[in-house]
Amino acid sequence: VIEPTRDAALARDRSDPIADLREEFVIDDPALIYLDGNSLGRLPRRTEEAIRRLVRTEWGGDLISGWEHWVELPFLAGNLLAREFLGARAGEVVLADSTSVNLYRLAAAALEARSDRGTILALADEFPTDRYVLEGLAAARGMMVRFLDSDPTEGIGIDRLRAALHDEGGTGGIALVVLSHVNYRSGALEPMTEMTAAIHDVGALALWDCSHSIGSVPVELEMAGVDLAVGCTYKYMNGGPGAPAFLYVRSALQRALRQPVWGWFGQRDQFAMGPRYDPVEGIGRFLVGTPPVAGIVAVRESATVLAEGAGIAALRAKGTALTELAIALSDEWLAPHGFTVGSPRDASRRGSHVSLRHPQAWQLSQALRAAKVVGDFRAPDSLRLGFASAYTRFVDVWHAFDRLRQVVERGDHLRYPAIPGRVT
Amino acid sequence: VIEPTRDAALARDRSDPIADLREEFVIDDPALIYLDGNSLGRLPRRTEEAIRRLVRTEWGGDLISGWEHWVELPFLAGNLLAREFLGARAGEVVLADSTSVNLYRLAAAALEARSDRGTILALADEFPTDRYVLEGLAAARGMMVRFLDSDPTEGIGIDRLRAALHDEGGTGGIALVVLSHVNYRSGALEPMTEMTAAIHDVGALALWDCSHSIGSVPVELEMAGVDLAVGCTYKYMNGGPGAPAFLYVRSALQRALRQPVWGWFGQRDQFAMGPRYDPVEGIGRFLVGTPPVAGIVAVRESATVLAEGAGIAALRAKGTALTELAIALSDEWLAPHGFTVGSPRDASRRGSHVSLRHPQAWQLSQALRAAKVVGDFRAPDSLRLGFASAYTRFVDVWHAFDRLRQVVERGDHLRYPAIPGRVT
Repeated sequence: VIEPTRDAALARDRSDPIADLREEFVIDDPALIYLDGNSLGRLPRRTEEAIRRLVRTEWGGDLISGWEHWVELPFLAGNLLAREFLGARAGEVVLADSTSVNLYRLAAAALEARSDRGTILALADEFPTDRYVLEGLAAARGMMVRFLDSDPTEGIGIDRLRAALHDEGGTGGIALVVLSHVNYRSGALEPMTEMTAAIHDVGALALWDCSHSIGSVPVELEMAGVDLAVGCTYKYMNGGPGAPAFLYVRSALQRALRQPVWGWFGQRDQFAMGPRYDPVEGIGRFLVGTPPVAGIVAVRESATVLAEGAGIAALRAKGTALTELAIALSDEWLAPHGFTVGSPRDASRRGSHVSLRHPQAWQLSQALRAAKVVGDFRAPDSLRLGFASAYTRFVDVWHAFDRLRQVVERGDHLRYPAIPGRVT
Repeated sequence: VIEPTRDAALARDRSDPIADLREEFVIDDPALIYLDGNSLGRLPRRTEEAIRRLVRTEWGGDLISGWEHWVELPFLAGNLLAREFLGARAGEVVLADSTSVNLYRLAAAALEARSDRGTILALADEFPTDRYVLEGLAAARGMMVRFLDSDPTEGIGIDRLRAALHDEGGTGGIALVVLSHVNYRSGALEPMTEMTAAIHDVGALALWDCSHSIGSVPVELEMAGVDLAVGCTYKYMNGGPGAPAFLYVRSALQRALRQPVWGWFGQRDQFAMGPRYDPVEGIGRFLVGTPPVAGIVAVRESATVLAEGAGIAALRAKGTALTELAIALSDEWLAPHGFTVGSPRDASRRGSHVSLRHPQAWQLSQALRAAKVVGDFRAPDSLRLGFASAYTRFVDVWHAFDRLRQVVERGDHLRYPAIPGRVT
């Protein structure tokens, strides 16, 4: 536990083994404390140069010949994520499309593989796009999505999940369970291994959304026996706005699964342009259209800087300490002002962001931004603060909470309207 | 008709009203004749700068605040394409995903809207990803795709299409017809207006793939009464490798159609994160996941340079003249060596690329590349040459054919193996 003083925070920064990693990122305004790297991670310096080279030298100069190596990028970047961040094997991860599109495609493949079963399980508290995608898949197939209740702070956990799995009603059994490894609002980190085993116990497939865990906590897809996973790369992975998502399919399942969007990048001997769809072996069969080259290059660069400059174990260790400090400061300074911690207090059950619940969270998020601390609001009452280990210092956490304390003490937030406008 | 001499070509370049547009593009090697702008268009200079600014200033500096305007980009770029290149209204076009994913989503929406009908029509000679996507959709729905024969050079045309439409067998009628405006191999330009009317006569919906027509020939979606369209932006639109595709849904249809991938970017009041999918009104309901910002910025820039520097009418007029010259040179120099023109001779039925058919087309494409003329091979026997009006000069066409004539006269191509390797 870190003492909640500025000096203790500074001391902690001095002994931070990955403190230098911050230098690898573009930081224009040192006075701005950016606690939204869980929404859009900062720009790594090397990405800027790599994109410039891709655009000017490869596209501009190599022209169509660039495809001789661009065509491998979804696999190479996928393998890098697999090895360094996802605990998966080469040939199990690929970069493609958006998280929503990948979730749709993998969930559809899973439902086809379990077509004798009629139910999908997910959390009522799940990130919206996951819920909507599953709702659409179920509607099109005459299936049902059961949205399970969970604790808004602690998540669902193994016991509640197990109870739900064994209480699936009369609709023909559970085909698929979709869960987030780290909840987007509370930061609750679910026990992936135990939960995947419980899902397999009832014969269902397990699809994990790792959007908020990749790059912040170790993900061990192979060890956990996960069937399918998706996730985004513009949060803790720093791939840039709208960077392509990843998808994972366990090797042993790849041959048996067929995703529904039969595009030419999944085709065997693609340029033979044969008469019928005949997908390649391996993870390539989960590709669809022409890969978004610039986005994949950005992910490759940011994954490289995180892996070489720290590694996921060091990122996780620092993330745990940063969120510990945040919670300690909240308890000390903010609890008297009506804030409660909306994230697990057990660090082993928490990702790298913390939600502070307060009835005026929207106004607070705006006033805090004016005080040069960027976090975000999540409906209905969460001020969500992300602590990206790669570039967040302990002293930043201290100052962020100090500024928030001043905001609330001065009542700055009361000058903002109570009805949220567009939230980014 | 242009006289097939170098002097005539040079004279034509001197009187070319859009000759200066070439200066807006990066051209590193002036000796290289790039006739593959129909696969991957050249880099506009302003795109390089716009991407640099997006990455360094907006992502690097504005961070999450960038989303305040990035969120409008799919619509703004869509409106630009609609107005300048697609003959569509504001609010009918949006940038999203890949052509394959968009085709899947719009075709699925159309099939749902015509769920009392069992057949999809497409050409056996259609671009592979379109065929595969439709095959997958039909398989999942117990429907049938009838792949129609067409003339490998001239396309299907109105009479053959009309015959096929009235001969739909006993499977419950035609739900959807998917056609390319310009064929990827032959360059055949189909009469969109007449064909769409014929499709509507049998109560089917018309979905046009404009990948090879956008930026090369005027597309008049509204005037032609088209229901749905998709297309890619990295060919004549110069959006860069893997740039996001566009999709078009006629205003009057938007409310009635529902695409199958229910992502959060299509959701009404997105950040309320409500419990059920409730898509917005308008073209926004056809968005799914987080937009690929850099790719959309690139499309906006390249569309701007083409619109401001020429406009589609001038691009089309020059494209017609360039392909006229190519065909004249082929007749004069290559026909004696066993080449035949695999593209329509009627300019009004031809896009901006020309296929030369030859049994050794693969080897010829390789030898031609060694002679610094870049075209591409399309199975089984086409050497496909694209004449992007924005930066291709008449004298380039003359030199390209002069070099090809020399290649074939010297037999350079016989040094290459007959079995194609990876074709890009």
